[in-house]
Amino acid sequence: MKNNICQKTLQENRESLENLLKRRFFVAPSFEIYGGVAGLYDYGPPGCALKSELESHWRKHFVLGEDMLEISATCLTPHNTLKASGHVDRFTDLMITDMKTNECYRADKVIEEHISKLIKEKGDKLSSDDKSKLEMVLIKAGSYGAEEVKDCIKEYNIKTPSGDNNWSEPYPFNLMFKTKIGPKDKEVSENIGYLRPETAQGIFVNFKRLFDYNGKKLPFSVAQIGLGFRNEIAPRNGLLRVREFQMAEIEHFIHPDKKNHPKFSLIKDMKLPLYSREHQLNNINHNSELTLEDAVYGKRKIIDNETLAYFLAKTYQFLINVGINPTGIRFRQHLSTEMAHYAKDCWDAEVLTSYGWIECAGHADRSCYDLIQHANSSKIDLVASEKYDEPVYKQILEATLNKQLIGKTFKQESSIVTSALLDIAKNNSHQEFRDNIEKYGNCKLIYDNHEWEVTSDMVKYEYKTKKISEEQFVPGVIEPSFGIGRIIHCIFEHNFKYRDTESDENQEQSKLGNNKDNNEMQRNYLSLPIIVAPIKCSILPISSNVIFNDLINIIHTSLINYGISCKIDTSSASIGRRYARTDEIGIPFGITIDFQSTKDNTVTLRERDSMKQVRISSNEVISVIFRLVNHQVDWRYVTENYPIFTQQLND
Amino acid sequence: MKNNICQKTLQENRESLENLLKRRFFVAPSFEIYGGVAGLYDYGPPGCALKSELESHWRKHFVLGEDMLEISATCLTPHNTLKASGHVDRFTDLMITDMKTNECYRADKVIEEHISKLIKEKGDKLSSDDKSKLEMVLIKAGSYGAEEVKDCIKEYNIKTPSGDNNWSEPYPFNLMFKTKIGPKDKEVSENIGYLRPETAQGIFVNFKRLFDYNGKKLPFSVAQIGLGFRNEIAPRNGLLRVREFQMAEIEHFIHPDKKNHPKFSLIKDMKLPLYSREHQLNNINHNSELTLEDAVYGKRKIIDNETLAYFLAKTYQFLINVGINPTGIRFRQHLSTEMAHYAKDCWDAEVLTSYGWIECAGHADRSCYDLIQHANSSKIDLVASEKYDEPVYKQILEATLNKQLIGKTFKQESSIVTSALLDIAKNNSHQEFRDNIEKYGNCKLIYDNHEWEVTSDMVKYEYKTKKISEEQFVPGVIEPSFGIGRIIHCIFEHNFKYRDTESDENQEQSKLGNNKDNNEMQRNYLSLPIIVAPIKCSILPISSNVIFNDLINIIHTSLINYGISCKIDTSSASIGRRYARTDEIGIPFGITIDFQSTKDNTVTLRERDSMKQVRISSNEVISVIFRLVNHQVDWRYVTENYPIFTQQLND
Repeated sequence: MKNNICQKTLQENRESLENLLKRRFFVAPSFEIYGGVAGLYDYGPPGCALKSELESHWRKHFVLGEDMLEISATCLTPHNTLKASGHVDRFTDLMITDMKTNECYRADKVIEEHISKLIKEKGDKLSSDDKSKLEMVLIKAGSYGAEEVKDCIKEYNIKTPSGDNNWSEPYPFNLMFKTKIGPKDKEVSENIGYLRPETAQGIFVNFKRLFDYNGKKLPFSVAQIGLGFRNEIAPRNGLLRVREFQMAEIEHFIHPDKKNHPKFSLIKDMKLPLYSREHQLNNINHNSELTLEDAVYGKRKIIDNETLAYFLAKTYQFLINVGINPTGIRFRQHLSTEMAHYAKDCWDAEVLTSYGWIECAGHADRSCYDLIQHANSSKIDLVASEKYDEPVYKQILEATLNKQLIGKTFKQESSIVTSALLDIAKNNSHQEFRDNIEKYGNCKLIYDNHEWEVTSDMVKYEYKTKKISEEQFVPGVIEPSFGIGRIIHCIFEHNFKYRDTESDENQEQSKLGNNKDNNEMQRNYLSLPIIVAPIKCSILPISSNVIFNDLINIIHTSLINYGISCKIDTSSASIGRRYARTDEIGIPFGITIDFQSTKDNTVTLRERDSMKQVRISSNEVISVIFRLVNHQVDWRYVTENYPIFTQQLND
Repeated sequence: MKNNICQKTLQENRESLENLLKRRFFVAPSFEIYGGVAGLYDYGPPGCALKSELESHWRKHFVLGEDMLEISATCLTPHNTLKASGHVDRFTDLMITDMKTNECYRADKVIEEHISKLIKEKGDKLSSDDKSKLEMVLIKAGSYGAEEVKDCIKEYNIKTPSGDNNWSEPYPFNLMFKTKIGPKDKEVSENIGYLRPETAQGIFVNFKRLFDYNGKKLPFSVAQIGLGFRNEIAPRNGLLRVREFQMAEIEHFIHPDKKNHPKFSLIKDMKLPLYSREHQLNNINHNSELTLEDAVYGKRKIIDNETLAYFLAKTYQFLINVGINPTGIRFRQHLSTEMAHYAKDCWDAEVLTSYGWIECAGHADRSCYDLIQHANSSKIDLVASEKYDEPVYKQILEATLNKQLIGKTFKQESSIVTSALLDIAKNNSHQEFRDNIEKYGNCKLIYDNHEWEVTSDMVKYEYKTKKISEEQFVPGVIEPSFGIGRIIHCIFEHNFKYRDTESDENQEQSKLGNNKDNNEMQRNYLSLPIIVAPIKCSILPISSNVIFNDLINIIHTSLINYGISCKIDTSSASIGRRYARTDEIGIPFGITIDFQSTKDNTVTLRERDSMKQVRISSNEVISVIFRLVNHQVDWRYVTENYPIFTQQLND
């Protein structure tokens, strides 16, 4: 059983962990030789391998396991797409500038820091009402508008960091990186491009092709793993707030009124750590104790629908599989003030880190918003249809046009007029125009910034009864969205361990003591699950004697043929120190070749967490590792089937 | 044995292939509902899966198979890094503008089009000298400078496309996408960022950490798979010239004077299709018939070193593994005019496509250029060292400084002066300054745009004999670099096949005839190797009868548990049409469930290319497919061990 996760311990470990991650090149600041760039990080060999294993498990768990369609769209995105999605106008943070120093700050962060300091300093002296009020500011500051920011700064007399200078008015700063596509010099909306702030839009604009690919059937899920970019004002906390990040997103398209899930019954009895809106607003600091069935259908219904609940359960399982401690996971429901106006319900999977609870995955019911926006902007229908059991009869508005007259009257504009008149019927819009045409025989039509004088002999609008055998509708979208970098950060924090050198498995190792790589008295290591371990196996000769070389090469080649990543360490460091090095980068298994190996062709196989070893023939060891890595057997099976080995003190 | 590849056939197939790729959503223009953006393409579900399989094989073949370190650096790159690498100043195409229409064109493309037209039109009327001259222009136009472009336009009287307007002077256009990092409004070099035009620089700037990670040993290879971006002036030819593309690059760091490769003996007898510089310049239109050993060591030595040759061989094997026809591969050596000034030797792996020979992978010996550039700009040593067998004694220039005097004289500038004076010793530079100091007792020092008056009581330069036990040097770099999208394009072209409906395996299918998805008389399909096939297996019930559902679900779940991607098609189309659909997206194996299945629990297993089927129990079929997909058995083994099935005409 895993220990409970505790923020204080995580904080105490942070420095040693960061030190290990940088020293062993899991992650390091990008362009460090040039002083680095805030918010950009590179993954070194073990970090890159871990990321790749994590993505590959995500693919297996979601894409393969749930029969999703995966696509790969571009990062470069033209203006029109992000204008339609709302990002050009609303993907902003409010900033305030110190008018004297010209330094700019995120308004919500300035407020949060000030309020947190207040709470910390005044502490128990605050009345419980005052304290609650301050805590509510903390919760809501992220969604404040400009006026609320100004009021708040005034009410709490928040000073500029450099002293008592004036703050500017709050102003929005768009977080998208802008560039120009194509060789034309002038910047016009046709050649403005942005780096996508999320991968989702690349899925929405491809909806039609994807729906066709799926045989025009709903529901279906589309997944995408790829980069997102946000020009953060204040990047910080390592991988947690960066400017370029790997995401894995799912857009589940579904009938907006039928959000049941065929596999709901498999997860309905699960109890997830749900931290509901109600609990947050009432300052109740524990999770709801509901089953998912009760959460969706019970008296205190808190999750909007089965499909959303199903994805929460899948995410919970995924996070545990890749090494997040379940006691450090909660699903926090968004407050209504946090959600976009169109969203129906949102739950963030949050993980407890040394920085507090951090969002690692969002689960949003985005309703039909995105498809409607893109359909309106692109003038292309983005709809699905479903056959009725019985055909229905409906009154449909139709336009009958006199195309000849329209052509004669409007000449080269006639096709725009025609499509405007047809659109009016289709959208059942411009009621007043239609009334006037009928009543007065003519009327001015204002449409899409154009104006025309239209007469009743050009167009006639009538309701007609139509037999309709299928329903057309805009699908709803449920979006689980994962931040790969954030999950990796949490995996590091939750799997950072240490043991005293005295607890070592044998004297050889307890001699270590003065290990430069570690504190004198303790050895740090990463207890990564096999599934995400960057390298699965090490190969260590007991000494650098050349007689081991043949066996090293044979084992190495066999492991690679089985597709198992491995690392040979033939350096002259003691075997104990070399074990410590492999533990540091989380290698779960180690093959040691010793002098007995050269006599009887056996080797030892060591497991990282227990530090136990078994003796096993060098032919068999490959397939045992293969089965361990592919979860066909576990370490216990190995210890029960092969003799435990206690290391001899030769070298 | 595969047929020879022939450009004419590829050209004839192009339209049908493009049609198939778009219709089945392998690849489609990005943001198509908004009219698309030139040079941007999205991978739909089968294209994305193929890309992911291709990358995963690349990882296995290179990273795992050759023990490389893989990293993942950022796309966003600050100005200083790309200034040092030369991209800010030299990563440009020459453009010319039609002065009347203001349309801009790539100068080399304008020239190439004109010359190609000339050759085509005048054809046989040209003297062989004239023809050779024109062909040389075609080869060299890409590397013309501004003056050569002007001369060429004048000599051949090349007109603007819109008529006889004037051309502008040729001017360089930088192909990098530029953006601003951070919230500051003003554009200064500190906040200018670019999207990386190649992944290589992210490896070079991390050299120090990587060298440490590798235990400070040379040689070693670092790999990276990721996006590159180029603001192409004229994107075209589908995936072949795009603005955002996936790359896979390797930087192999090696002692600049010891470029042997430990595994050269394994490939030395291979004969690759080498198209040498000499053959190109002499218009010899066939490849050299040399073994790699002769190519590196023979009289007509054409490859610079063993390591470069080893990578050519690895690339050749890789391209064949993923489905490129070997008769459509050649390695073309760069002309000296094509290569960067620092490059020692370059070979492009070119693949024959409907557009001609296309570069899919480059292999460049970049010498020590990149590390030297970054070391100079960042002032951080990027060097390796190697112990001598015996220590050597060398004369080393040393500077003895009077720090007190320097401090007193230059005050806050004294640390810059100090490091300048030390650099001079280290680099053995500024000979004249050193001479003058000694001779006259003082001299003006000009260094890094600064000027100081330095006197001989501040610094003394002397050669001293030093015992040196290790050699410090800047490693050389050999870079194999792959364009993933281009390789995918070539895989499509080389594996696009068709068969007459009459050649179908049974009457059921030859009834197809009027298949809307295809020409009336032929069925197109993709004969993709298992290794890159987007989906490995289909599950097809013989009809949409519900009695098949249980078995479908059991087989589906088992395949997923084995990690095998599969696609169920329960639509009401005839089994023949459904086979055709799975063939179109290159699914190599198909399980068919028929009425006999419900009686004896057997199914049929069909292979795409031969259209042969065997009958096999539904339990066994999973492990057979697993072994087929993992190359443990081949189809021939299956046909020899299970009864051939001839489809019954039921349903």
